[in-house]
Amino acid sequence: MVNGLTHFDEKGASRMVDVGDKHVTKRVAVAHAKVKMKPETLTAILDKEISKGDVLEVARVAGIMGAKQTSTLIPMCHTLNLTAVKIDYTNNGIDCVELFSEVQTYGKTGVEMEALTASSICALTIYDMCKSIDRNIVISEVHLLKKSGGKSGDFTFIKEG
Amino acid sequence: MVNGLTHFDEKGASRMVDVGDKHVTKRVAVAHAKVKMKPETLTAILDKEISKGDVLEVARVAGIMGAKQTSTLIPMCHTLNLTAVKIDYTNNGIDCVELFSEVQTYGKTGVEMEALTASSICALTIYDMCKSIDRNIVISEVHLLKKSGGKSGDFTFIKEG
Amino acid sequence: MVNGLTHFDEKGASRMVDVGDKHVTKRVAVAHAKVKMKPETLTAILDKEISKGDVLEVARVAGIMGAKQTSTLIPMCHTLNLTAVKIDYTNNGIDCVELFSEVQTYGKTGVEMEALTASSICALTIYDMCKSIDRNIVISEVHLLKKSGGKSGDFTFIKEG
Amino acid sequence: MVNGLTHFDEKGASRMVDVGDKHVTKRVAVAHAKVKMKPETLTAILDKEISKGDVLEVARVAGIMGAKQTSTLIPMCHTLNLTAVKIDYTNNGIDCVELFSEVQTYGKTGVEMEALTASSICALTIYDMCKSIDRNIVISEVHLLKKSGGKSGDFTFIKEG
Amino acid sequence: MVNGLTHFDEKGASRMVDVGDKHVTKRVAVAHAKVKMKPETLTAILDKEISKGDVLEVARVAGIMGAKQTSTLIPMCHTLNLTAVKIDYTNNGIDCVELFSEVQTYGKTGVEMEALTASSICALTIYDMCKSIDRNIVISEVHLLKKSGGKSGDFTFIKEG
Amino acid sequence: MVNGLTHFDEKGASRMVDVGDKHVTKRVAVAHAKVKMKPETLTAILDKEISKGDVLEVARVAGIMGAKQTSTLIPMCHTLNLTAVKIDYTNNGIDCVELFSEVQTYGKTGVEMEALTASSICALTIYDMCKSIDRNIVISEVHLLKKSGGKSGDFTFIKEG
Repeated sequence: MVNGLTHFDEKGASRMVDVGDKHVTKRVAVAHAKVKMKPETLTAILDKEISKGDVLEVARVAGIMGAKQTSTLIPMCHTLNLTAVKIDYTNNGIDCVELFSEVQTYGKTGVEMEALTASSICALTIYDMCKSIDRNIVISEVHLLKKSGGKSGDFTFIKEG
Repeated sequence: MVNGLTHFDEKGASRMVDVGDKHVTKRVAVAHAKVKMKPETLTAILDKEISKGDVLEVARVAGIMGAKQTSTLIPMCHTLNLTAVKIDYTNNGIDCVELFSEVQTYGKTGVEMEALTASSICALTIYDMCKSIDRNIVISEVHLLKKSGGKSGDFTFIKEG
Repeated sequence: MVNGLTHFDEKGASRMVDVGDKHVTKRVAVAHAKVKMKPETLTAILDKEISKGDVLEVARVAGIMGAKQTSTLIPMCHTLNLTAVKIDYTNNGIDCVELFSEVQTYGKTGVEMEALTASSICALTIYDMCKSIDRNIVISEVHLLKKSGGKSGDFTFIKEG
Repeated sequence: MVNGLTHFDEKGASRMVDVGDKHVTKRVAVAHAKVKMKPETLTAILDKEISKGDVLEVARVAGIMGAKQTSTLIPMCHTLNLTAVKIDYTNNGIDCVELFSEVQTYGKTGVEMEALTASSICALTIYDMCKSIDRNIVISEVHLLKKSGGKSGDFTFIKEG
Repeated sequence: MVNGLTHFDEKGASRMVDVGDKHVTKRVAVAHAKVKMKPETLTAILDKEISKGDVLEVARVAGIMGAKQTSTLIPMCHTLNLTAVKIDYTNNGIDCVELFSEVQTYGKTGVEMEALTASSICALTIYDMCKSIDRNIVISEVHLLKKSGGKSGDFTFIKEG
Repeated sequence: MVNGLTHFDEKGASRMVDVGDKHVTKRVAVAHAKVKMKPETLTAILDKEISKGDVLEVARVAGIMGAKQTSTLIPMCHTLNLTAVKIDYTNNGIDCVELFSEVQTYGKTGVEMEALTASSICALTIYDMCKSIDRNIVISEVHLLKKSGGKSGDFTFIKEG
């Protein structure tokens, strides 16, 4: 691994990285995503007088369930027993929903991919629930926000300015 | 559905929309995603002298397999038999990979979510394969690029100016 | 099959029944389930002032997603593309939630098991969401309510007197 | 959580409950289900001269496999590594099969839902295997029978009088 | 595709082959596998006086369920609705079980991989059920035996002399 | 279990064996498989001038992902958190690819079935990727090569002959 891509061996073969010797520690990761839509789409989501159905709660359920499917979706991801998953929303009151997925485990490797998968599936579900009124929805800023635990230490995303 | 959110009934209950009366037609959708990374990360991906392993091919396999999991991930999505899936890449030679997932079916409803899921899982896998050297990767511009087939007709994404 | 158990051949081997020669027709099935709980549990579910969270909507999402997993759970079930799934609730205002799962397909075999699986997973999720306050919840009256389509014709459940 | 529904936060958002601080202990749960059918259906199941195939063994395999799918089916369930699963049957010799699913883990949270899911999938499979001769089968008395391990202590179901 | 490997495009990218223009026809495939074991292992499997449990029936259920998972396991496989699956056994009375998995669909592409996957999962399950008494079990002769339907026509395996 | 088939109880009922009292130790297993094909098929796989696509890398990804699905495929297998998976290839330069899947866990039971499943899914994927040019491919010599860890101790396969 002269280049640091640990998911390949020295001959270029992909592999699930050996984490057997790592310590079992508490590991937490938070991932972000932003869903941009038409103003009337956000209104339909937020104003229960109009929509009645709860788009964000359905999407939250999908995101939490998606976190548990991470190792079946991402080829080299380890299987982990998650000890907590939650997804919080904010919105700008105009045309954007932002979501923050926090995942926790006690294991030998981190849960960055679980948090990112939760955010992606949650955002895709918002898209699906609203696509009958808005096909121009755009998902962006899907990235790790912070993580803690493990040998590589803490990480906080620094937005490029 | 006064507000057009077809995934809820008039009382606000979520549901898998009834597409029983729709026609079986050829339906195609293409979804986009952009993966922004450090320049040295793109170099590691593209220069096989350095990395040997094929990040983009592993991610492509994940995206194609992800397309087939769409209805298990997105709560209200219909199950469909996909007749073709492919993922193409471009890169800007500096710090970005762009990906285009095309999905086809002959069915009663479209494959927008399948294309979007393929793009998301593919992008997440690029993230996973490179996160040992770059934790600041950002996935953005995840959106439907175009679709054809079905009663709602053709659609092409128009980038906001 | 002297005894009519079509899921076994004449030597007693289990099998997925050959439905290749059946016609593709519209098939609908509705399945029932009843969830009995303590009165204060029903109050917690129904009174949003108290619970805020929406137990029944989370359970509905689980039931709809469960319907799509039927063929992976029930060994001899055929894989089918469902064209509609919905779940309705009633309650007796005292201590019972009843649920009705309706599933539709256009295929060569019926969706009884999909409707029953939706009802079962939905009921189990109500149990899970409430078990922190009530471990004595009982699920009962899980049965097919009615079905239509296919050679065997229509069926309506007759409650035993 | 003024109301004790731990699967929602104070704003009513669903979540996978944080069990990170709980202790890893041996946890066992047993769940019951009853499958009521026509007398001739029970005869067909029990008399191998008639049916040859083994309905109850196929259903048992489905139930054991179902236990392992619990966290993919029930939205807020934790993923757990099960260390034992077994399903026992009794029958009344007339028209009822009763089943008892016992699940064990060493983990930070209990396996009630795993035992209940095993019983439900097992019962649904009995239904599926027999529906060609009996569409009036009813599944009832699906409930937790007992559990041990964990801070909340032992539990035994008390049948309502 | 100068070399005929249809699962790659002209640039070497993997893809799910476009079968959209193919005809929906009845397609059947039969796949073989052989499981070689110690003579006392075969005795334990066949003599119900000794083992009581039914290894071959559990393995058959696993194989049938495995056929339905083919498109989630084999990256470029199409999703198909199977209309029949069965698995037959023979044994040589000494140290071998042979198994024959037959899969049928009405679709745009064949079910060779579904039959082969059924045989493989069935054989692996025999292995698993017997590994406590025999770790030297060998699975061999996993191959397509015959197929019919589709443009490429019928095929029968010819054993090399 | 007079006959040593631990996956059945004394009445012949299948079960997931109770491993609760076993120790958590490092456990490693390596499984073999051989894929025999026409000489021109091996040439197409190995000579990137001809095929461009990377059959063996796609198959490797499938095998690694397959290892993680073992407990959903093999009925009585325990769920385990794998800490490493890798697949190596050799070929005879004529008509055979051999593959070696190594799986590691820290758990209460071994990973023989995970290694064997990885090898089987990997071999089946090679079959799938090449079946457009060679339908006579045969998978053989699928067996455990060696294992270590756990009370039953080390094991090395001894080729008969």
